[in-house]
Amino acid sequence: MAQVLKGNAVIGQSGGPTAVINQSVVGVIEGLKANGFEGKIYGAHHAVAGMLKGDFIELQDIPQDRLNRFANTPSAGLGSSRDKPDTEYCKNILKVLEQNEIHYFFYAGGNDSSDTCRIVNELAKAEGYELRAFHCPKTIDNDLVCNDHTPGYGSAAKFVAQAFMGDNLDNAALPGVKVNIVMGRHAGFLTAASILGRRSDADGPHLVYVPEARLSVDKIMADVDRTFKKYGRCVMAVSEGIHDENGEPLAAKLAEAAGGEVERDSHGNVQLSGSGALGDFISKAIKSKLGIKRVRADTLGYLQRSFAGCVSEVDQKEARGTGYKAAELAMAGDIDGSIAIQRLSDDPYQVTYAKIELGDVAAKTKHLDPKYIIDDCNICESFKQYLAPIVGPIAEIETLF
Amino acid sequence: MAQVLKGNAVIGQSGGPTAVINQSVVGVIEGLKANGFEGKIYGAHHAVAGMLKGDFIELQDIPQDRLNRFANTPSAGLGSSRDKPDTEYCKNILKVLEQNEIHYFFYAGGNDSSDTCRIVNELAKAEGYELRAFHCPKTIDNDLVCNDHTPGYGSAAKFVAQAFMGDNLDNAALPGVKVNIVMGRHAGFLTAASILGRRSDADGPHLVYVPEARLSVDKIMADVDRTFKKYGRCVMAVSEGIHDENGEPLAAKLAEAAGGEVERDSHGNVQLSGSGALGDFISKAIKSKLGIKRVRADTLGYLQRSFAGCVSEVDQKEARGTGYKAAELAMAGDIDGSIAIQRLSDDPYQVTYAKIELGDVAAKTKHLDPKYIIDDCNICESFKQYLAPIVGPIAEIETLF
Repeated sequence: MAQVLKGNAVIGQSGGPTAVINQSVVGVIEGLKANGFEGKIYGAHHAVAGMLKGDFIELQDIPQDRLNRFANTPSAGLGSSRDKPDTEYCKNILKVLEQNEIHYFFYAGGNDSSDTCRIVNELAKAEGYELRAFHCPKTIDNDLVCNDHTPGYGSAAKFVAQAFMGDNLDNAALPGVKVNIVMGRHAGFLTAASILGRRSDADGPHLVYVPEARLSVDKIMADVDRTFKKYGRCVMAVSEGIHDENGEPLAAKLAEAAGGEVERDSHGNVQLSGSGALGDFISKAIKSKLGIKRVRADTLGYLQRSFAGCVSEVDQKEARGTGYKAAELAMAGDIDGSIAIQRLSDDPYQVTYAKIELGDVAAKTKHLDPKYIIDDCNICESFKQYLAPIVGPIAEIETLF
Repeated sequence: MAQVLKGNAVIGQSGGPTAVINQSVVGVIEGLKANGFEGKIYGAHHAVAGMLKGDFIELQDIPQDRLNRFANTPSAGLGSSRDKPDTEYCKNILKVLEQNEIHYFFYAGGNDSSDTCRIVNELAKAEGYELRAFHCPKTIDNDLVCNDHTPGYGSAAKFVAQAFMGDNLDNAALPGVKVNIVMGRHAGFLTAASILGRRSDADGPHLVYVPEARLSVDKIMADVDRTFKKYGRCVMAVSEGIHDENGEPLAAKLAEAAGGEVERDSHGNVQLSGSGALGDFISKAIKSKLGIKRVRADTLGYLQRSFAGCVSEVDQKEARGTGYKAAELAMAGDIDGSIAIQRLSDDPYQVTYAKIELGDVAAKTKHLDPKYIIDDCNICESFKQYLAPIVGPIAEIETLF
């Protein structure tokens, strides 16, 4: 039964920004309007923090051309938040929703965000307050369960792939060892994207270390030594979240061993990004243990998620599609859920936007399939079959040697 | 008198790669062929190192479509070198040139490369060996005298500008202090390019530190404190080559103070790139001295010069143009020189490729005009007038707040 509920809607963007999270916001707006929604559409300034204060911007009257430009703009244009709301926090959000007659709640984010969505939704149900609560997936980490892949990943993967394509050629021009640190706390999808532009074994990245692998400094040194002897150079893609043999994050252990204070976020996670420390440690170890002179480290950093001008068109389209689908379902009378991208076929590449339960995706992490990981130090070429359609066309290169 | 000298030609690429240095190689090939050259065109593998060993690849028969793809490929496809040849080294190069009947010598690189070109040229003259020796400008640092700007700079500037556009929005979404380290040892041109996408004072970068400014840690802290109080956030563009009040590089002092060994290149320069140390130091100082919690540092690193898929079309065209011009002059009977890009007008943007003397550009450094530097902590909006035509169109963005 299609039932249009009166009232207003709110949209929030949570967690780390991506190149396409504004697409999801615009998708929701378009999905609501196309299905007869007539209330106000509020954008929550800085996600739950804005919802708590009623700090909203009205989105329903923004002209389409401006919405299109906004959709194409990287980062989270409504402002984001790292707050992890508990039940008390969510109760206060619900009060603000009630005061503003908001009956449609859309939240774009990762697995923590779907959990927030779930809590608010359950509180509303308990109170008998009519709410339609939908989560739109978003994370460059690509680590949401029930999703073939997530909005934000394809564009970040394109950035990482093109960064490595250029850096491999740079390293070929001036040979040495190059360590590149890639984002990804628990899942290696983004680091694995470094291989997309690789044409043969002689191309970098020659070594790819993902959080799913079990590593030691000694193993890494042996891998580098072997590769450098073979090719006279070595390009490494190293996830910021690499783990040791006991499953402990190497970066946190290194930071603690160095006597530095370890910063933790509100979820209790050690802060990994925003520092060059891991790359510098690996670089120093290679110089001192292997005696290789030219060793350089770069940390790809926040550019991976927000660089202006490097975006996957498929990713843009799908991010918009998930937002549209959430709004469409809410307008059709669906109460709650999360939208998941599910792949129907590889060739031609086809996906569908499926509704799953909020609890299905909350607080869980999807990992890279072990079949893609070679000897804990590389990624299989077959991973490209999964990745290529999500990223779309990448830069073309030609070499003479 | 147009005089076609019989014999072969060699082309080398030296110093740090850029996104367009292959364009210059293709420009030389095209310029030679269009002007009746009939000999072999050798590409020197790894620059002077290849010339010393006669490690050449023949370029004259490569089909045009492959040349075009090669021209569009970032990094130095012939291989580069950091060797700084002395007279003895150059004497040995000259022997190899003689053995291979090479009478045309083209060298793309920075000011050190023009000096190499000058030494080989003078040795040839002293011996009475007929040589036409030309230098093609190349450096993302944009620090060659007699040049309005240099090939490689426009593309690197586009990367930096788009990185800051996205990162400013990322910082607006999750406010805090963000330190971004940009390449540039002596000249602030690339760091200054960070302002190109800035739309108002509220947009980052809010602080821009170039090597030409005179800085202290205390001044930087006062600047950040003032900015953070005003905007609730702060994005900083910091050149890797920033200097203290005495003109000493801050990064080298910090590295030495931290007890680390300092790496120097064959030119005696302290190695600045390939480490996150400077950003991490500034980040820690802001946390401890100002008590600001969310402080992150990224070092843009080698991506600035070799990222695949971010290039200025004007830069591509001009890099090819300088190569073509060098070949054209050599074929017309000119003996030696360096090609300089000189701007004829801003609107419409027009340049000419002028011949200057090799000694004019060798071992000199152009600096950012002091008129562009505000209070040793920012770059004037008027710099965009100089920069914009070199970079060409950049990503468009739209914000709602």
